[in-house]
Amino acid sequence: MPERRRITGFSNPTVKALRALREKKHRKREKRFLAEGLRLLTDARECGRIPEVLVLAEGRDPHPLLAALEDAVDAAGGEIIETSPDILSKITGKDNPQAVAGVFAEFDTSLGHLDRSGASIWLVAQALRDPGNLGTMLRTGDALGAGGLILIDDCADPFSVEAVRASMGAIFTQQIAQADWPEFREWLRAGSGQLVAASLRDAHPYRGAAYAAPCFIMVGNESRGIPEDYEMACDLRVTMPMKGRADSLNAAVAAAVLGYEVLANLD
Amino acid sequence: MPERRRITGFSNPTVKALRALREKKHRKREKRFLAEGLRLLTDARECGRIPEVLVLAEGRDPHPLLAALEDAVDAAGGEIIETSPDILSKITGKDNPQAVAGVFAEFDTSLGHLDRSGASIWLVAQALRDPGNLGTMLRTGDALGAGGLILIDDCADPFSVEAVRASMGAIFTQQIAQADWPEFREWLRAGSGQLVAASLRDAHPYRGAAYAAPCFIMVGNESRGIPEDYEMACDLRVTMPMKGRADSLNAAVAAAVLGYEVLANLD
Repeated sequence: MPERRRITGFSNPTVKALRALREKKHRKREKRFLAEGLRLLTDARECGRIPEVLVLAEGRDPHPLLAALEDAVDAAGGEIIETSPDILSKITGKDNPQAVAGVFAEFDTSLGHLDRSGASIWLVAQALRDPGNLGTMLRTGDALGAGGLILIDDCADPFSVEAVRASMGAIFTQQIAQADWPEFREWLRAGSGQLVAASLRDAHPYRGAAYAAPCFIMVGNESRGIPEDYEMACDLRVTMPMKGRADSLNAAVAAAVLGYEVLANLD
Repeated sequence: MPERRRITGFSNPTVKALRALREKKHRKREKRFLAEGLRLLTDARECGRIPEVLVLAEGRDPHPLLAALEDAVDAAGGEIIETSPDILSKITGKDNPQAVAGVFAEFDTSLGHLDRSGASIWLVAQALRDPGNLGTMLRTGDALGAGGLILIDDCADPFSVEAVRASMGAIFTQQIAQADWPEFREWLRAGSGQLVAASLRDAHPYRGAAYAAPCFIMVGNESRGIPEDYEMACDLRVTMPMKGRADSLNAAVAAAVLGYEVLANLD
């Protein structure tokens, strides 16, 4: 086993650099992001994503999956650092840190990278601002067997610690693309694909609507919803029952309810 | 219009007392909680919930709903305070505060208070730790026309600022009860009611399962799910497709997917 670098000081430059990855500007400059926890890092490894840097807490319990992770990082020529649980907590910003965290290279998030024929369902988020909602959509996409998540306009960063955490590993299994609306629309119309939105305007009941694969399910910003002209560009607008005072669902919830309905209809 | 009390200092004892309501121990001692935003406070008013204290930001835009709110608080003998946007921001802990916040008395959350015949769907959360998930479940319950949310065992506080915020007003429209498992089970079995859980054990496909009203839909803790013996005490266990690597959905998402399926089957 190669020698591990040990870091003992909070003011160590590597600690500062790792911790800075919690901020978007540093992530964008470094093109790297943080993920934490043995389960998440194991999901990553099994999807062929090996961290460039692995940070281990001293005093951790041995675990065969941790050993497999260390082997994979060594084999890939990555760096392994040991540090105290307190310093690891400082890096991840979590009070009860996991025993392990990893630094990964950000993925290609261009639309051209996506293979739309690879899945029947794709999720689309427009100006979604909450990283937790974004991560939850990734997690739901994984459960649906979706191809991935397409982020339209100014969304939260999918590589933020909060989004990665909420994705429960789906950040590594789902494809992610980022584009503005005209780019997305052009890409979508250059191939097959039905764009569906939850809407109150001229909408069909969501239950048993005429869904078609590949089906792109779009939800909008937490406060404003989807802009009207985007909605009008959809192939299908569907409406879900709203029996109370509220006129909308949480965005990640709406995507899931609609996604499971599409899944049942396409299956 | 009665004279308004004006508060200009951050160290004012009232500011400190209001701000302390963001902490659970203070809420429990005072039996009061904070809610913010004109829309949410208007929902409250229309449900007959008037704040004991209304805090207004100076320099706010006039609004007929705000005036209606002030009238209601005056009529109920409540207190109205004016302060700076900065101080209001300090009270609510939000960077971009709404122009108004209110302090409400906590509701009765005993099981005995619930009228199970009043709705076909009830949501049940077991040891749910995330206040955002809890608030999202309240919001979903409102959309489903559910009667309310029953919190089993050690859940997040429904009166926390985060839960109230995520509920988008449903904290005022949904009934809320808190109980431990034996209490809940005894209450449930003393009347009609089908207890349903999402499960991997001995489970029916969730789609078109034999749901019956009043249907109590239970989801479990974010990490551990529902304890096995609780699951076994359910009348119906259902399973949702999981087509990816993950073996579960976000708790609030699972409740919504299942809730909308139940709604479609009972309607």
